[in-house]
Amino acid sequence: MKEVVSAAFVMIGDEILSGRTEDKNLNFLAKNLTEMGISLKEVRVVADVESEIIAAVQAVSKKFDYVFTSGGIGPTHDDITSEAIAKAFNDEIVQNQVATEILENYYGKENLNQARLKMACVPSKAKLLDNPVSSAPGFRIENVFVMAGVPKIFQAMFFAAAKELIGGKKVKSQELKTTLTESMLAKEFEDLQKKYHQVVMGSYPFEGGTSLVFRSKEYEVLDKSVTEMAEILERIKSGSIISA
Amino acid sequence: MKEVVSAAFVMIGDEILSGRTEDKNLNFLAKNLTEMGISLKEVRVVADVESEIIAAVQAVSKKFDYVFTSGGIGPTHDDITSEAIAKAFNDEIVQNQVATEILENYYGKENLNQARLKMACVPSKAKLLDNPVSSAPGFRIENVFVMAGVPKIFQAMFFAAAKELIGGKKVKSQELKTTLTESMLAKEFEDLQKKYHQVVMGSYPFEGGTSLVFRSKEYEVLDKSVTEMAEILERIKSGSIISA
Repeated sequence: MKEVVSAAFVMIGDEILSGRTEDKNLNFLAKNLTEMGISLKEVRVVADVESEIIAAVQAVSKKFDYVFTSGGIGPTHDDITSEAIAKAFNDEIVQNQVATEILENYYGKENLNQARLKMACVPSKAKLLDNPVSSAPGFRIENVFVMAGVPKIFQAMFFAAAKELIGGKKVKSQELKTTLTESMLAKEFEDLQKKYHQVVMGSYPFEGGTSLVFRSKEYEVLDKSVTEMAEILERIKSGSIISA
Repeated sequence: MKEVVSAAFVMIGDEILSGRTEDKNLNFLAKNLTEMGISLKEVRVVADVESEIIAAVQAVSKKFDYVFTSGGIGPTHDDITSEAIAKAFNDEIVQNQVATEILENYYGKENLNQARLKMACVPSKAKLLDNPVSSAPGFRIENVFVMAGVPKIFQAMFFAAAKELIGGKKVKSQELKTTLTESMLAKEFEDLQKKYHQVVMGSYPFEGGTSLVFRSKEYEVLDKSVTEMAEILERIKSGSIISA
């Protein structure tokens, strides 16, 4: 098993950038990848501009094991993702036979107008991704999974893609919540981070306290560091440590 | 007035990438910038890794008029944004006198431990950004506004930053909702887009229909294109146009 399996997410959509639409996909993807032992390392949101899509996809597909894109694979003229992805991989767009049959079955052959047929046009090297929600498939090319932006369809396509993903060892995470503020525990927390370099420790303030998050693939060390921090928090609270 | 004023947003945070925290800032920022005539062109989410922060900020600060960052300016060891931003601009971190006084007033001089003082350490060329919520300031360096990740503080800092932003001509947007599906109107919609190149037209399916969004800085042309599309939709519905 690979130690670290990495991924990136490229959201394609003017509607996210203008604020018209609120993203609902990032958190879903992040949680599901984490669950599979795949580490989401970078996200980019780019406009519906071919050169921007190509640049973003090329940059992250070289850098990470898997890439997921969302948006721009519908039937209208502003759906330019498939074309851009083909160009990013020096491939060309073809009318996919299987995709055409899927659309014929869904819409009826007589209703398959040009716009609908556009959704069967994918890069020649693409492998289709099932879409049980609205039939028009997503696709995979090399390490890039090209999916719809509508959350329900995005999720369905992700579960289709998930069958092909090979995860790494899972990062486990543990959380300690305390009523202490960040600055009351920062020094001891930093010392603990230095002691346990195999554990990534993050601190997140909330109203009324702080949440300390510990993440690691070494589960015993993880437990040990959390137990130790819990004791330290008790000592800070009781006044036997005063952070200075 | 500048025709197009552009911006990028760099979210810094392992917690967004792991799925632990759901982002609440992107949509707020996007809406507010749009409202000010500033066009958000790109978003990146990067991990709490210095080299990643530096690379992202350098890339977008060259490309766009304004950059906003969120996250990583608190008192704990995982807060590395200020240091990274200083390096991105070949600057060094100094203890800012004004920021120190702000923190002294807020916490009381006797309670200003090392962790809290860290929040007064910013690049030497930084100009502070007010934080009425929890006092520790954000800052601006060149065209980059460095802000907290906690939504309430992010928002407060954005309103402080907004005083310094110069917007362009506002993009107005209009929306047409129809019960027609995307593929029933795609051809006519594309023809209209070709006719009105000054208007950016996007199509967004929802359950039960399609939302057509028209955006432009040329308000008369915008109105004209929307009126024309409304008539076209009526004709498609009544059957006098059959999209083929």
